[in-house]
Amino acid sequence: MSRFTRKSSKKAGSSPGTLVHVGEKKTDDIRLSMLHYDAETLLERSLDRVEAALPSLKPAATTWINIDGIHDIAVMEHLGRQFGLHPLTLEDVLNTSQRPKAEAFDDYLFVVMKMLQHDAKKNLISSEQISLILEKNVLISFQESTGDVFEPVRERIRKGKGRIRSGGSDYLAYALIDAIVDNYFVILEKLGERLEILEEAIDDHPDAGILADIHTIRRELIYLRKQVWPLREIIAHFLKDDVAFIGDSTRLFMRDVYDHTIQTIDTIESFRDILSGMQDLYLSIISNRMNEVMKVLTIIATIFIPITFVVGIYGMNFTHMPELTWRWGYLLVWIIILIIIAGMLVFFRRKKWL
Amino acid sequence: MSRFTRKSSKKAGSSPGTLVHVGEKKTDDIRLSMLHYDAETLLERSLDRVEAALPSLKPAATTWINIDGIHDIAVMEHLGRQFGLHPLTLEDVLNTSQRPKAEAFDDYLFVVMKMLQHDAKKNLISSEQISLILEKNVLISFQESTGDVFEPVRERIRKGKGRIRSGGSDYLAYALIDAIVDNYFVILEKLGERLEILEEAIDDHPDAGILADIHTIRRELIYLRKQVWPLREIIAHFLKDDVAFIGDSTRLFMRDVYDHTIQTIDTIESFRDILSGMQDLYLSIISNRMNEVMKVLTIIATIFIPITFVVGIYGMNFTHMPELTWRWGYLLVWIIILIIIAGMLVFFRRKKWL
Amino acid sequence: MSRFTRKSSKKAGSSPGTLVHVGEKKTDDIRLSMLHYDAETLLERSLDRVEAALPSLKPAATTWINIDGIHDIAVMEHLGRQFGLHPLTLEDVLNTSQRPKAEAFDDYLFVVMKMLQHDAKKNLISSEQISLILEKNVLISFQESTGDVFEPVRERIRKGKGRIRSGGSDYLAYALIDAIVDNYFVILEKLGERLEILEEAIDDHPDAGILADIHTIRRELIYLRKQVWPLREIIAHFLKDDVAFIGDSTRLFMRDVYDHTIQTIDTIESFRDILSGMQDLYLSIISNRMNEVMKVLTIIATIFIPITFVVGIYGMNFTHMPELTWRWGYLLVWIIILIIIAGMLVFFRRKKWL
Amino acid sequence: MSRFTRKSSKKAGSSPGTLVHVGEKKTDDIRLSMLHYDAETLLERSLDRVEAALPSLKPAATTWINIDGIHDIAVMEHLGRQFGLHPLTLEDVLNTSQRPKAEAFDDYLFVVMKMLQHDAKKNLISSEQISLILEKNVLISFQESTGDVFEPVRERIRKGKGRIRSGGSDYLAYALIDAIVDNYFVILEKLGERLEILEEAIDDHPDAGILADIHTIRRELIYLRKQVWPLREIIAHFLKDDVAFIGDSTRLFMRDVYDHTIQTIDTIESFRDILSGMQDLYLSIISNRMNEVMKVLTIIATIFIPITFVVGIYGMNFTHMPELTWRWGYLLVWIIILIIIAGMLVFFRRKKWL
Amino acid sequence: MSRFTRKSSKKAGSSPGTLVHVGEKKTDDIRLSMLHYDAETLLERSLDRVEAALPSLKPAATTWINIDGIHDIAVMEHLGRQFGLHPLTLEDVLNTSQRPKAEAFDDYLFVVMKMLQHDAKKNLISSEQISLILEKNVLISFQESTGDVFEPVRERIRKGKGRIRSGGSDYLAYALIDAIVDNYFVILEKLGERLEILEEAIDDHPDAGILADIHTIRRELIYLRKQVWPLREIIAHFLKDDVAFIGDSTRLFMRDVYDHTIQTIDTIESFRDILSGMQDLYLSIISNRMNEVMKVLTIIATIFIPITFVVGIYGMNFTHMPELTWRWGYLLVWIIILIIIAGMLVFFRRKKWL
Repeated sequence: MSRFTRKSSKKAGSSPGTLVHVGEKKTDDIRLSMLHYDAETLLERSLDRVEAALPSLKPAATTWINIDGIHDIAVMEHLGRQFGLHPLTLEDVLNTSQRPKAEAFDDYLFVVMKMLQHDAKKNLISSEQISLILEKNVLISFQESTGDVFEPVRERIRKGKGRIRSGGSDYLAYALIDAIVDNYFVILEKLGERLEILEEAIDDHPDAGILADIHTIRRELIYLRKQVWPLREIIAHFLKDDVAFIGDSTRLFMRDVYDHTIQTIDTIESFRDILSGMQDLYLSIISNRMNEVMKVLTIIATIFIPITFVVGIYGMNFTHMPELTWRWGYLLVWIIILIIIAGMLVFFRRKKWL
Repeated sequence: MSRFTRKSSKKAGSSPGTLVHVGEKKTDDIRLSMLHYDAETLLERSLDRVEAALPSLKPAATTWINIDGIHDIAVMEHLGRQFGLHPLTLEDVLNTSQRPKAEAFDDYLFVVMKMLQHDAKKNLISSEQISLILEKNVLISFQESTGDVFEPVRERIRKGKGRIRSGGSDYLAYALIDAIVDNYFVILEKLGERLEILEEAIDDHPDAGILADIHTIRRELIYLRKQVWPLREIIAHFLKDDVAFIGDSTRLFMRDVYDHTIQTIDTIESFRDILSGMQDLYLSIISNRMNEVMKVLTIIATIFIPITFVVGIYGMNFTHMPELTWRWGYLLVWIIILIIIAGMLVFFRRKKWL
Repeated sequence: MSRFTRKSSKKAGSSPGTLVHVGEKKTDDIRLSMLHYDAETLLERSLDRVEAALPSLKPAATTWINIDGIHDIAVMEHLGRQFGLHPLTLEDVLNTSQRPKAEAFDDYLFVVMKMLQHDAKKNLISSEQISLILEKNVLISFQESTGDVFEPVRERIRKGKGRIRSGGSDYLAYALIDAIVDNYFVILEKLGERLEILEEAIDDHPDAGILADIHTIRRELIYLRKQVWPLREIIAHFLKDDVAFIGDSTRLFMRDVYDHTIQTIDTIESFRDILSGMQDLYLSIISNRMNEVMKVLTIIATIFIPITFVVGIYGMNFTHMPELTWRWGYLLVWIIILIIIAGMLVFFRRKKWL
Repeated sequence: MSRFTRKSSKKAGSSPGTLVHVGEKKTDDIRLSMLHYDAETLLERSLDRVEAALPSLKPAATTWINIDGIHDIAVMEHLGRQFGLHPLTLEDVLNTSQRPKAEAFDDYLFVVMKMLQHDAKKNLISSEQISLILEKNVLISFQESTGDVFEPVRERIRKGKGRIRSGGSDYLAYALIDAIVDNYFVILEKLGERLEILEEAIDDHPDAGILADIHTIRRELIYLRKQVWPLREIIAHFLKDDVAFIGDSTRLFMRDVYDHTIQTIDTIESFRDILSGMQDLYLSIISNRMNEVMKVLTIIATIFIPITFVVGIYGMNFTHMPELTWRWGYLLVWIIILIIIAGMLVFFRRKKWL
Repeated sequence: MSRFTRKSSKKAGSSPGTLVHVGEKKTDDIRLSMLHYDAETLLERSLDRVEAALPSLKPAATTWINIDGIHDIAVMEHLGRQFGLHPLTLEDVLNTSQRPKAEAFDDYLFVVMKMLQHDAKKNLISSEQISLILEKNVLISFQESTGDVFEPVRERIRKGKGRIRSGGSDYLAYALIDAIVDNYFVILEKLGERLEILEEAIDDHPDAGILADIHTIRRELIYLRKQVWPLREIIAHFLKDDVAFIGDSTRLFMRDVYDHTIQTIDTIESFRDILSGMQDLYLSIISNRMNEVMKVLTIIATIFIPITFVVGIYGMNFTHMPELTWRWGYLLVWIIILIIIAGMLVFFRRKKWL
């Protein structure tokens, strides 16, 4: 459950703007990297200190500074001062249990999102918080750890494919958001596969583990929805208003991301519906099976209990039991038994149990 | 589940505007056909290349270009350049897992919808994506494969029935959308028939297969709703705003399509409600039956277990059992047995089990 | 299910404005009747042809033309031309699976509603579509067949009771809509009675038929809601906007119809809630009963199975069984049996099964 | 169910404004009483005829006329003329199945509400309709019968406590509405107590009656919600708009009533949620119990059925059964029996049934 | 249930603005404390009377007056006069069953919230009502009893950490609200832990107590939601409108509280979803177990009942039973028994019960 309430209780009551890293420390050292480009030039480097890089930048070019690792408060405070970030922004960057949101400040647009990954070991969707600071020509991205879904974007910048080299920092922001949202489909596909496997399992061998699986997937969908749902309003907000820092040409592309977000939400809802249908189906299969078990028991017991009684009668040791000495007594008992069995079978047939 | 998440993971991370065909290749060759008409003239032909046709067009007449097959990226890129389509539009045309939507561009209105078909073999609703590019005098439609629900529209153009020959490209767009939405009723009717068959089956022979059927139909309804629901806002948008490319006279007709869309959604919701009622009904029939099985077992067992005990007593071989030598011992046992049976019957009668 | 999807598949793909009668033919001949009145004069007649009547009309008076039977397309086409109806309007009049709606045209206001009737034979709510064409001084009503809920309105016109003779065509339209909505309460009362009967049945003799009844009533409520729900927006629309053809004084009355519509919807929702509560109650009664059946079985079996075993022991024929020859062996067995029975009874008492 | 559809079918089709008393006649004679007051003066009397009282009124003072009993149409018609009420208003006053609503007329504001009472005999919430006519200096209230929740308000007027003597007719209206809404809390408290009793009963002795109780309370909540829900918009409407007849100072107090209404609705919804949780809990307790019953049966049967078979074997009368004559045959059988019992116990222990 | 309807029935009907303390008396004596500060100075003291303190205050500094204990009506009335509070405000402060709300008065902004605490003894969330009166330079807070979540805020004021000393009374209000909302996460974390414990319990030892626990937690969530949900609109209202008394710089921080409120609501909804999933899972585990119990019973009974019948036959004492004297009769019986057992095992294997 801790994924849902990671905002630690230590945090409660502390001063707003107090920098507290909420979350696990996912990487050891903090890594800064910079991509500085325009249509003609491309500069890529790993940075030790931000100051070193900044003076050499071309004014009209786009700069993407990516920071992996946000657990070191001293470094983060330094970066915050360097980039002129509001204390609340920095606090949100550090608090990895942030709800996805977008906030306009005077100097920049601040976006928090979740990059999701299917953690195969724990069989959980794990999330990494991505914070984007969009300024005029600069985009700063904060990640909890190394490893992300942005490699294709970097590749496109390096190769100068498409609009990206000439699109400015807002187009870059779009490209990163798009990469994150596209990745949600990968997660959904994984869940879709698990649903399909479950559906087959329900047909083939509906055992007790299936409901636990359904429960697990449902919890994943709840978690996923919690992360994706807020995106809808964020991006809708980018589309509707005169949001600063996002140009008109990029807005057209944002519409595309919006569609994908809606589609993600639609699919999550469909999966939830399907899942609840599967649960009903499974429960009814179980109940049908129980029914069959009961029927077998009832048929066997109902046939044999009466005839066992009959043979019990003639096992009694009374000295005066005339039937016992009849010539055809034993045969008669068998006839009675067969009549009882036949009667029962007719009765079952009528009840449609056979 | 793949119907729900067809947006392939290969696509994730690629540059926006990159043309990737997402979906199955449903036809081998790409077929272009053109209908060029106004109130007086009608020109119909199959095209090899778009360029060949374009010069000969009358300026005021309406041209409908239909393309069957969208899997060949080179051809599509060529078409895109020819018609002046935005890269994002072309990307959406190729991505057959697109959510239905309408987007206004400067030069055209872009609409994506799903044409649904009941696939009798797989017992699934299968969908084919239809993209419409509505320009001033031109309508371009992209389909995944040959075969569509537009034949009656073509027939009306050929025969010059109704307004269609004089209605312009927006009326043509309306006619196509109307044909698609009308076809949803055919799908719904098929589902309605399956519901009716199910309902009778629940009455006649409620067996284990019924819940699987209910589950299947529900999944179809979820899928259907996912395709139809977005239409509602699309067409509402056509009605409310000053949407370019749609004239006032056509808007009146669009209102009609809107009604049909709402009606489709209503019917889907009603079917879902009915389906869930049927499931409850079925489950309770099953549970009633179980109840009856248990009652039969209980009646038989409850009568015979005690009397079997009685006869068991006198099957014991004690040397000192006075009853065994009594003159009327055996008769007495029978009397005891009959009393027990009578008592049980009274008890059951009181419990209203008989 | 056909009530839900009556829009026939033949209709799909036909030209908009094409007149196709969708629905059953409910009456053999088409009957036209006219009521022409103002505060002083009243003229009532059956018409053969509309033209005959029209010239003689007083300009300021109100004319109500009622047509019973809409299946004859030729006649309808003629009427449409006569009254100057838009092809789409005529198409909607003929399509009896229309969703309730109101549409403003330049020359008239078009309203489609459902008149509901409880069909005692099929135990179904059956609906008849009523189309109203409201013009300045003329109201035209189309019905599928003869027989309606308008008789009291006609009576009021004939007797000149209340405002109706001086209220104009909009007040007449209100009166008809009011009569239809009032009739919904009659339907709801019938359903309410069936609910009450069901509720008593659940108390008295909860048998397997109850859930089928619940299912039937729920399906009726779903159908009813589908017909009533759209009315809400229709009449709200009459209230809010500057709807042409509806005067201010009539608008005040429309507010009353609006209240009734809301009340109908409220009651439908309440019934649905109550119905689902009744279903839960019924299922739990069934399950309680099963529980009791099981308890009886368990008590009997648990007492007799062990003691039957005891007497079985001494039915064995071993030559060396010392107990068999003991003087008080038989008595001892009885004591053992009684101890077992007493122990079991104590056990059951503790479990609160007795 | 009749509480939900009291609008009688006799009413259907009658002319709007026709006065028909819908509901039970709850009191025999109609009683009028008048309170006429301002900050200084106070006049209280029972009236025979309204006319008698009216001339003597001070123009700036507030007059509250209360009518108990609305079943006599002649009297009501007379009152309506006297107070200048619109026919529709009078119709609504008489129709005691009115949905709570507020309607602005030119000369007055008309409010209909339900005063609820817990009818201890029928164990039902019963409602009495209160209609308020708010004019400039006059407030007229119609009740179905004598006895109401307004006594404290009268007391405050008589004693001149608080703002009421100087607050005008709108403040009086507020005071009455507040008294009615406050009374809802009393009803909710009663229901809350019943919920608590139920909750304890589920813990202590979960028997079959509990679900019937849950069903009853749920039906009461459905009824209550139906009466309270419309209040929300009514009072919100008082707050938002420039409603005539309600002054700014009173509006501040209306905000308070609004809060209470919301709180009532919140509590109703909470109770519904809790109730449905209790139902789940109860059903699962029942199912757990069944489970235990089955386990006892299974344990007893599973142990004794096999050993009964064993002793059955040696009850056979074959002449050639070597074991019967063995010296330790009988002992051996006992050993076998004990081994079977021990094996079974180990098996149950492993299954965690013991 | 009393937590849900604490508004006592004594209160019903009393004059608005009448001071009645609704709730438990949680503390014996009323304690007033004052913090008076600006960036330079800090004055903290316990007050006997408010008047004593007021004259000495610096005009531009911020004053926070905190009152613990609201049950003494005389003292409260005095305070109300002192601070110039509206009677309705004072009434709301005293009524501890108030729904969270914010109300703008001419001289101050009034906010009521709930401070929640997990009461370990009763295993309930208990709430304490906090009322804030925000004026230009003064913030007054009313609490039901001593002990709160504001200690960190006081500490920050004392140490002069962050903006708080220079932020004014609106920032102080923000800080208090933030402290309360932050504390909700602590409550949610506690509930999350209980959910996790439950989840493990369902896996390890699903016993009857689990559903009672689920029911308890669900009731807590219902209660929590009831307290948190209204906060959403309250704080949204602070953000959107030109609310007096809240400055622009503080509004930025309010956005942060808003996010946290939304996140709290999200988490509550997620927990409810997870809880209902856990209930389904638990019920299905129970039902699976029952199934297994039934299967064991059925297998044992189905095997032994027929063979017990067989041995019963040869326990009969007929004088003419040829088999009894056959040489291999006994062996033959054993063979028959083994065949029956083998047949049953094959049958079970086919049914997949083994």
